[in-house]
Amino acid sequence: MNKKPMTLSEKIFSKASGKNVAAGEFVIADIDRAMTHDITGPLSVKGFYEIMEGKDDKKVWDPSKIVIVFDHQVPADSQNAAQNHILMRKFATDQGILNYDVFEGVCHQVLPEKGHVKPGDLIVGTDSHTCAYGAFGAFSTGLGSTDMAAVLASGKLWFKVPETLRFNVRGNLPKHVCSKDLILHLIGDVGVEGARYKAAEFAGPAIQKMQMPERMTMSNMAIEMGGKAGLIEPDQVTEKYLKERIPNFSLDSYWKSDADANFSKIREYDVSDLEPQVACPHNVDNVKPVSELVGTKVNQIFVGSCTNGRFEDIQMMMNAIGNNPLAKGIRLIVVPASRTEYMKALRAGYVEKLMDIGAIVESPCCGPCMGGSFGRLGDGEVGLSTSNRNFKGRQGSPNSFVYLCSPETAGASAITGEITDPREI
Amino acid sequence: MNKKPMTLSEKIFSKASGKNVAAGEFVIADIDRAMTHDITGPLSVKGFYEIMEGKDDKKVWDPSKIVIVFDHQVPADSQNAAQNHILMRKFATDQGILNYDVFEGVCHQVLPEKGHVKPGDLIVGTDSHTCAYGAFGAFSTGLGSTDMAAVLASGKLWFKVPETLRFNVRGNLPKHVCSKDLILHLIGDVGVEGARYKAAEFAGPAIQKMQMPERMTMSNMAIEMGGKAGLIEPDQVTEKYLKERIPNFSLDSYWKSDADANFSKIREYDVSDLEPQVACPHNVDNVKPVSELVGTKVNQIFVGSCTNGRFEDIQMMMNAIGNNPLAKGIRLIVVPASRTEYMKALRAGYVEKLMDIGAIVESPCCGPCMGGSFGRLGDGEVGLSTSNRNFKGRQGSPNSFVYLCSPETAGASAITGEITDPREI
Repeated sequence: MNKKPMTLSEKIFSKASGKNVAAGEFVIADIDRAMTHDITGPLSVKGFYEIMEGKDDKKVWDPSKIVIVFDHQVPADSQNAAQNHILMRKFATDQGILNYDVFEGVCHQVLPEKGHVKPGDLIVGTDSHTCAYGAFGAFSTGLGSTDMAAVLASGKLWFKVPETLRFNVRGNLPKHVCSKDLILHLIGDVGVEGARYKAAEFAGPAIQKMQMPERMTMSNMAIEMGGKAGLIEPDQVTEKYLKERIPNFSLDSYWKSDADANFSKIREYDVSDLEPQVACPHNVDNVKPVSELVGTKVNQIFVGSCTNGRFEDIQMMMNAIGNNPLAKGIRLIVVPASRTEYMKALRAGYVEKLMDIGAIVESPCCGPCMGGSFGRLGDGEVGLSTSNRNFKGRQGSPNSFVYLCSPETAGASAITGEITDPREI
Repeated sequence: MNKKPMTLSEKIFSKASGKNVAAGEFVIADIDRAMTHDITGPLSVKGFYEIMEGKDDKKVWDPSKIVIVFDHQVPADSQNAAQNHILMRKFATDQGILNYDVFEGVCHQVLPEKGHVKPGDLIVGTDSHTCAYGAFGAFSTGLGSTDMAAVLASGKLWFKVPETLRFNVRGNLPKHVCSKDLILHLIGDVGVEGARYKAAEFAGPAIQKMQMPERMTMSNMAIEMGGKAGLIEPDQVTEKYLKERIPNFSLDSYWKSDADANFSKIREYDVSDLEPQVACPHNVDNVKPVSELVGTKVNQIFVGSCTNGRFEDIQMMMNAIGNNPLAKGIRLIVVPASRTEYMKALRAGYVEKLMDIGAIVESPCCGPCMGGSFGRLGDGEVGLSTSNRNFKGRQGSPNSFVYLCSPETAGASAITGEITDPREI
């Protein structure tokens, strides 16, 4: 398509805008996939019909490119949610759009899992963690409901092609340290604005060694450093995952940043000595090594969400728990990120074991991540969570405290009742 | 204790008041067991401390006779719930009261299951379906939070000894017809005020043939005919259940109504030809045979609650579902009544099968029964539910419609998407 070296983001925007573009340029881009969910969807639909007012044909631009997922308030947790679900179901039916209803899982897990994401795609979603699909080499970003209304109508959206901030990560993650620890470390290092309106790109041998679940955790949290996207170059690992989900998928080696592309900055890391990381209240970049927090009393632990709710995450937690009982008084809430992940956990015996030791296992949904319909923290309570945000009041009371951590740290802490270093159990 | 023939209720109140009493008398009775839960408990606790104000010793009358269960809003589904939980946990700790926290199940399942109910007991609880424990030959009734405050302080409460309305039930329940159909039929027959301030007593060969789960369903719904209690004479079935749960339990044949006791009325029934029953919106006594409702479209089916959330109920539903897929668009929400019942369902493979076919299985709690934190119905939606109340707006929108049925009818309807006669599949 071009000779000039390009970042992966520049390649994707060049394809999407039909001309060779570079970071800093404004483009009108064709959207490959649009995702909306049960909370942000209704306003998008309202906006869409406002745009279409007076037109005979009130059809979306391409129903095959739109996916709806009910995940934030499922099954309907309020009257408003129930009405939103009715509205969204009708919209999906009227427009012929695929709708994953209340039983399927969290959007950012469901979309890749069901084959709606591939390298080189330009994807938008009405959810800030839409950046998760960057793990597959897609440029994927969150937007507001009214922007989505325009996408539903036209299939196009304007962008300023972002610069790319590359994180080049070497070394082997030590035992009991995982990609969540790494992304928390990177966010702590650059700060919540460190990648503002940039495409974060996670690259290097340490990233290449990661399987897709770990990569999805990395890309998912790019927004927490202000990133417009969080890209990982697709490779054989990506290919294997997608071949199982997309008919006739084959990897196109074009979809990666050229070696001599123009990066705004390349940051070098070595993870060989990284210790488990914890983001402390009330900001995601308030990151400390777990050793500095050991002993912090915890009331509730949430393992789940689009960040760390996959089978492999639950497995890590279970390994940390081992055959130990839960600490007295601790509330451990486990919510697999999708029905598929739930089934894997169930068939591995984890649901049985968790329920048996007094944990709470719920059907796939966003769960307590954003202080939704269950697992809210009360005044003064401390929550430990594998999710992606710990803003003041995020999981309940504005007077509660949320710490973010890896599934292993969550599991280790579940048996002690306080923040615990998973390397020490 | 006495020579004069007595009903079971009269015997219990005679024991509890220390003198022989008959229906119509007012007594101050000693409470054997007091139960409160996460919604009604906080007001009871507030009332209790108001009563104790100024006293040096602010202790409940007997912590060993009080049980707290968190079941209505678990895990905390609102800020208010989170604060209530904190308050109730503190009360339990301060007073040395047994507290079943967010993971154990619905109070009316947990109390018998954990050995807190026995024949001849006088039990009060701050929940209208406290009448459920009548299945064990206890006089058990619901009361308000402020009455409970007085009980917490004194261990005593006044009662007018109720008359007994006896339902004498003969015959064998036909295949695909269960105790839920019978109790719906009885409520439909006598109406919601048919047993007002009476002890309903379910007796006769058809009742004696029932196992404890079926009997618990019967007694649970006595309140829906206005009953102050819903008693079943304890027998070998009761004894077997309680021997597994209460150390050294032995059945005392005294705890039954004398044959020549003074019943306000004895109503005779034969269930041999009973067909599955459905309570239609918006009253529990608006009962029709299922055949009159076949074809009514359903949006959501809830199988759970203290009425029909036991393993045997889930088993009945699963048998009706068989190897069929769920009807397109139906939302089937299954919530076992306790952790113990959940484990039985899981180990029987039911959780796996339900999740696999796209049902939603949640951790034990009251669930959508009272329009709580999930599974609310939207405007115009129709819910089919194995729970105990279908009042307008009970499970969500005041413009929704709730039908009550047996687990088998629920299962049969889940595969068709409309109210279906379980005998016809």
